[in-house]
Amino acid sequence: MDNFNFYSPTEFVFGADRENEAGQMVKKFGGKNVLVHFGGGSAVKSGLMDRVTKSLENAGLSYVTLGGVKPNPRDTLVYEGIALCKKENIDFILCVGGGSVIDSAKAIAAGVLYEGDFWDFYSGKAAVEKALPVGTVLTIAAAGSEGSGDTVITQEATGLKRGAGSNALRPRFSIMNPALTQTLPAFQTACGACDIMAHVFERYFTNTREVEITDRLCEAVLLTMVKEAPRVIKDPDNYEARANIMWAGTVAHTNIVGVGRSQDWNSHNIEHELSGFYDVAHGAGLAVIMPSWMEYVMPHNPMRFAQMATRVFGCEMNFKCPEETAKEGIRCFRRFLKELGLPINFEELGAKEEDIPALVEKFGVGDGKTGGFMPLSAEDISNIYKIAAHAKV
Amino acid sequence: MDNFNFYSPTEFVFGADRENEAGQMVKKFGGKNVLVHFGGGSAVKSGLMDRVTKSLENAGLSYVTLGGVKPNPRDTLVYEGIALCKKENIDFILCVGGGSVIDSAKAIAAGVLYEGDFWDFYSGKAAVEKALPVGTVLTIAAAGSEGSGDTVITQEATGLKRGAGSNALRPRFSIMNPALTQTLPAFQTACGACDIMAHVFERYFTNTREVEITDRLCEAVLLTMVKEAPRVIKDPDNYEARANIMWAGTVAHTNIVGVGRSQDWNSHNIEHELSGFYDVAHGAGLAVIMPSWMEYVMPHNPMRFAQMATRVFGCEMNFKCPEETAKEGIRCFRRFLKELGLPINFEELGAKEEDIPALVEKFGVGDGKTGGFMPLSAEDISNIYKIAAHAKV
Repeated sequence: MDNFNFYSPTEFVFGADRENEAGQMVKKFGGKNVLVHFGGGSAVKSGLMDRVTKSLENAGLSYVTLGGVKPNPRDTLVYEGIALCKKENIDFILCVGGGSVIDSAKAIAAGVLYEGDFWDFYSGKAAVEKALPVGTVLTIAAAGSEGSGDTVITQEATGLKRGAGSNALRPRFSIMNPALTQTLPAFQTACGACDIMAHVFERYFTNTREVEITDRLCEAVLLTMVKEAPRVIKDPDNYEARANIMWAGTVAHTNIVGVGRSQDWNSHNIEHELSGFYDVAHGAGLAVIMPSWMEYVMPHNPMRFAQMATRVFGCEMNFKCPEETAKEGIRCFRRFLKELGLPINFEELGAKEEDIPALVEKFGVGDGKTGGFMPLSAEDISNIYKIAAHAKV
Repeated sequence: MDNFNFYSPTEFVFGADRENEAGQMVKKFGGKNVLVHFGGGSAVKSGLMDRVTKSLENAGLSYVTLGGVKPNPRDTLVYEGIALCKKENIDFILCVGGGSVIDSAKAIAAGVLYEGDFWDFYSGKAAVEKALPVGTVLTIAAAGSEGSGDTVITQEATGLKRGAGSNALRPRFSIMNPALTQTLPAFQTACGACDIMAHVFERYFTNTREVEITDRLCEAVLLTMVKEAPRVIKDPDNYEARANIMWAGTVAHTNIVGVGRSQDWNSHNIEHELSGFYDVAHGAGLAVIMPSWMEYVMPHNPMRFAQMATRVFGCEMNFKCPEETAKEGIRCFRRFLKELGLPINFEELGAKEEDIPALVEKFGVGDGKTGGFMPLSAEDISNIYKIAAHAKV
C-alpha cells in the first residue's frame, strides 16, 4: 500500500428536515456574517431558501444572498462573489445547491483571502492555502463536493474547465436531506448517479498496489448504486433509495475509496472538455466517455476489469478468457447507464465527431502523457473520443 | 434511513516510517508541551519511543513521558496522568501504543479539564464536553480507538469495565505505520482481527432500516478481514496484509460502517464483563462471546445472518431453509476464529461456568433489557454465557 494521508473533517448532518439546523451549524463553526450562495429559482420556489435563511435569522446571524450559479459554474460569478464578500465583510459562505454551487462557493472562499486573481488556483499558478469557511445544504447527489476539497470552474471567455483542490476548501459541515433531491428531474438524477460511479471507477482502476480494503470499499459503493439508481428512476419519491444514493455520493468522493494507491482521472478530464465545449451535463458526458475509456484501456489490465465485472455486475468469470469477462462488465455498465436514460454516444449527447481535434487540442496534453492507470497521449485521447462518438449497447 | 451525524475529523497519516512526523503533527495541531503516554517496554526496546521523542525534539517541543498502561487500562494510572498533566502544564497528549494506551490517554485528556472525578464520565454521571487534544502513534490494529471518540477504562478496585464517548475525544491525528505491528505475537494479532470484525458485526446486526450502502461497507471490511487475517497469521512480516488490516480496523470504527440505523453492542458489553473479571484479552473474549451471541439471537432475524453468510463467507443460499444458511455462516465465523488461533469457549479462554451468575450480576441489566438488535434480559445474557461456555467448532 502506498503511504497516504486521509483527512475528511466535514461534519455530515444527514436526514429529513436537517436544513433547519443550518443556522446552528454556521454558528457552531464560528460564522456571523454569511453569504448564502445558490443557483436558480428552484431553491427559492420550493421554499428551501426561506427555511435556510429563517434558520440563520433564528440563530441571530446576518446574511446577504448571491444566486445565479449555473451548471458548469463560471468564473464571472466567482469574481462577483469575491467582490461582494469583501464589500460586506463576509466571514462564512453557506451554499444551497448541488456541486456547481458548492464549487463556486469554494472558489469565492479561496479568492476572498487571496491577493491575486483567483483563476491562478485553477491554472496551476498558485495553491490554495487558506479560505473562508464553507458550509453546504446539498440538493443534488452527484459531485461529492460536499465532502471534498475539490472545485471545478469554467472560464467563460475561453470555455476552459479546470479544477483546484485543498484541505482548506473542505466544507466545515454539509447538511444532506435526501428529500430535497426528490423533485429533481429523472435525467439529472441519472447524471448524478453516473458521476458518483465515475468517482469510484477513477479510483478503482489503478495499477500500483494491491489494496483489498480499498477495492472492497469501491465495490460497496458501486453495488449500492447498481441497486439504488434504477429504483429511484422508477420511483422518484423513494426516500430510502434517495438516501442511499446521497450518502454513497459522499462516500465516493471523500477519498476513503481511493487511498493507498494511484488513481486515474482521465475519464473526468476527457469529459471536462466535452461539457466545457458544449455546456452539457457532466454526468451525461461521463456516461458517453467512461465506458469508451474502459474499452480502450481494458487490454492494459484485463483482470481488474474482470474483477469489476464479476464483483459489481455479477458476471460469470470466464477463466479461459478473462478479457471476455472484462468486456461483458463494460457492456453491463453501458447498458446500465442507457437504462437510466443517459446518452451513450456523441449524437445522443449533442456532440460532434468533427470537433474531436479541437477537443484534444483543448485537453492540452501536448507531446506528453497523462493519467494514473494507463497514461494516455493526445492520440489515445482522440481514439477514445472516436469510440465515444459511435458507442452503442 | 435514520437521521444521523457523521463526524470523523482525525487526520490519518498512514504508511512506512510516518512516526518520524509525530513532532510536526503535534505542532500542526497546536501542541507545545506534550505528555507522551505509552505501555510497556516494547515501545522502548524497539526504538520506537526514541524515534518519536526525537521527532518531538526536532520540532522544538518539550515533553514528559508516562508509561505503564496495561491491557484493560486502569483508572489508577489515569489519576496519575491527570495529576502529572496539571503539574507540568501539558497542552497535548501523544500516545504511543494500541487501544489501551489511547483509551487511557483520552481519559486523562478529559480528566485534566474536569473539576470532578474523571470516573463520572464512565459511570454515566457526566458527559465529556472538552478535553486536551490527543494524537496517536498506533502500534496495534484492533480497537479502532485511533479514529473514534470512544474510550473504555477498568476500575481497579471493582473490576468494572466501562466506556465513555465524545467528539471531543477524537484524536487530532493518528500516525499508522503497519510495519510497527509486524513484531506483535500471533495471538495478539488474531485478537485484534477479531475485535475489528466484532466492531463491524455490532453495526451490521440491526433491525431498524434497510441501508444498502451501510451493509455493503460493513461487508467490504469483513471481506477484507477474511482474506487478510489468515494471511498475516501465516506470514507475520507481510506488510501489505498488515496495512490492509490496520486501515480496515480504523474504517471499522469511525462509524462510517454504522450510520443510518440502530446498532447492537451487546456482544461487546457481554465480553467486557469477561475481560474485566478475568483480565483476558478483549479480542479473545469476543471470539468466545460473539459467535455464541449470534447463535442465540439468529432466530430473531435469520435473513440478516443468511445475508452475512452468503456475502461474507461465500455460503450457498438455502432458499428452502434460510436458517440453515444463517447457521452455516455462524459456523464459518467460529471456525475462522479458531483457525486464527483464538479461544472459542470458556475453558480455552480461562473462564469458569460457575462464575456466570456473578458475570450477569456485574453486567447489571437488572429487570430491564439492553441492545439494539434483539434486546436482551439478564436471563438471555446468562444463556449466551452458557452457550459460550461449551462452544465448539
